[in-house]
Amino acid sequence: MSQRVVYEDSNFILKYNPFETPWYILYTKGEYKEFSHMPKDQREYIFEYLYIIEKAILEYFKPTKINIASFGNYYPKVHWHIIARFENDSFFPESVWGQKQRSSIISLPPLEPFEIKLTKELKECCI
Amino acid sequence: MSQRVVYEDSNFILKYNPFETPWYILYTKGEYKEFSHMPKDQREYIFEYLYIIEKAILEYFKPTKINIASFGNYYPKVHWHIIARFENDSFFPESVWGQKQRSSIISLPPLEPFEIKLTKELKECCI
Repeated sequence: MSQRVVYEDSNFILKYNPFETPWYILYTKGEYKEFSHMPKDQREYIFEYLYIIEKAILEYFKPTKINIASFGNYYPKVHWHIIARFENDSFFPESVWGQKQRSSIISLPPLEPFEIKLTKELKECCI
Repeated sequence: MSQRVVYEDSNFILKYNPFETPWYILYTKGEYKEFSHMPKDQREYIFEYLYIIEKAILEYFKPTKINIASFGNYYPKVHWHIIARFENDSFFPESVWGQKQRSSIISLPPLEPFEIKLTKELKECCI
């Protein structure tokens, strides 16, 4: 399965990354290799968006922990991962880029109502 | 080697995490499990600090890429990793939590002048 667009505006695209737990990636449309290369207003958007996405994931999926990361070693253009982690997921407490700990199937509520609400919140936030 | 305090103010502590490349960790002093649990002003400080630290690392060490992450699966209290990555470091292009790719020794300029300048910038920024 490939990534699926959940939300888009003039500066950002949010995609769902198929995984056993909710994993979203916030991509910048501008050609910025590093976070500090971005203009201040776009950096502020990112943190407001991360806040909204994290809060929505916590409320709806009730994960054990949220993991946030911005690497870009393979794809050197700013993008941020926001991942819901559960204590019984396949990698916990390691990062999802770490060593697999077990084989898990996580039972989750449907994504669609979550993404409808999240999209609405992102739209209302800052555009 | 254990972590070493580089900077501290009323809300945050910045530590150097001994590694083959520059790795700093920004800890919150408040008891916040998740980023979105923090008050808005402290979230804003974090992003201003991450910006300053990233910019300083890029200028001084000239790494291939900056990696930023906030997990907290082992230690569920908000802290952010800021790591300089080089294309010939032991893990690149994997994350430093991933599979080791090779054994490397990275040649770096001394930390002390960098940390003196960084501390000054953090102090002048927001306190």
